[in-house]
Amino acid sequence: MASSVVKRATCSAVAVLRSGASLRSYARVASGTDIIAAAPNVSLQKARSWDDGVSSKFSTTPLKDIFKDKKVVIFGLPGAYTGVCSNKHVPAYKDNIEKFKAKGIDSVVCVSINDPYVMNAWAEKLQAQDAIEFYGDFDGSFHKSLDLVTDLSGALLGTRSQRWSAYVVNGKVKALNVEEAPSDVKVSGADTILEQI
Amino acid sequence: MASSVVKRATCSAVAVLRSGASLRSYARVASGTDIIAAAPNVSLQKARSWDDGVSSKFSTTPLKDIFKDKKVVIFGLPGAYTGVCSNKHVPAYKDNIEKFKAKGIDSVVCVSINDPYVMNAWAEKLQAQDAIEFYGDFDGSFHKSLDLVTDLSGALLGTRSQRWSAYVVNGKVKALNVEEAPSDVKVSGADTILEQI
Repeated sequence: MASSVVKRATCSAVAVLRSGASLRSYARVASGTDIIAAAPNVSLQKARSWDDGVSSKFSTTPLKDIFKDKKVVIFGLPGAYTGVCSNKHVPAYKDNIEKFKAKGIDSVVCVSINDPYVMNAWAEKLQAQDAIEFYGDFDGSFHKSLDLVTDLSGALLGTRSQRWSAYVVNGKVKALNVEEAPSDVKVSGADTILEQI
Repeated sequence: MASSVVKRATCSAVAVLRSGASLRSYARVASGTDIIAAAPNVSLQKARSWDDGVSSKFSTTPLKDIFKDKKVVIFGLPGAYTGVCSNKHVPAYKDNIEKFKAKGIDSVVCVSINDPYVMNAWAEKLQAQDAIEFYGDFDGSFHKSLDLVTDLSGALLGTRSQRWSAYVVNGKVKALNVEEAPSDVKVSGADTILEQI
């Protein structure tokens, strides 16, 4: 009984995550949005070790380098190391990487409001860094620009990303899926977006 | 040559960390400060897995539970997974844990402006969780109250803790060591504070 309660709480009904999500049930970004124009002067930070961060002089990646002239699937989540749901979310994209490639997708991108060193360690732990490109959004500027942030202080996380996915062609959003609650993986999983491509 | 440049940059002279630190060369907290009174209503978040976070109902730890009637050595650092310097900082405390116990220290505490799930994963990776108590300060409220924050956006980290250590008896700071630059471990290491106890 106890484990079933915990499992339910972890995977589908964490009250505090739901309450955070209830602050917003939609996002400013939508199908048709030019994601590069919607977040001007915003860069993401490619996941890497601290030593690689130093040797790269803490370089960042402009959005146009990620999206311009490319077919991209991008998904965002509340945080590295945030449990069973996140761990299911990433592996589903990893396990379907060949299907994405077969549909002409140039890159599958995972982004979260974490620093790039934490993202790198998490990607390595999930053994997903070869299939998926991981990026940090350490100051949340990308997610704030797209109105995809939510307050998860009740879960000891602070301002974080909602759980979402998008299919983006040359910077234009062709499909967008934002979970009503960050604890859900109802519309932002790999299966849904594979059907939308 | 290249590796020596990287090593020097990583361990002693990361320009961006130095520039971050130059914003402040001292902290409001000082020897004699009552750390519980200086940060009223502030709690830290014990490092744990996401599942343990859920089962604990995302509980937090009031400062009095950490410091009251105890002899505590506490040290703060800019972030989990931030490289060679941090990896040296934590192991030095871990490796000296028996010396701290022999001097009557009840607990050695590591704190950082990270969430408790990232802190837990990092502690496990360093195999230090049995010797040291790790806490997150996810919203930075503890370090802000003590005036121990610095802007490390240039290192893709955002607002983080300075690198510091303190010997605290029943909440009263008996010794405080704050590095001039977060990339240094000149005064905040285990050896220095062992001599101060």
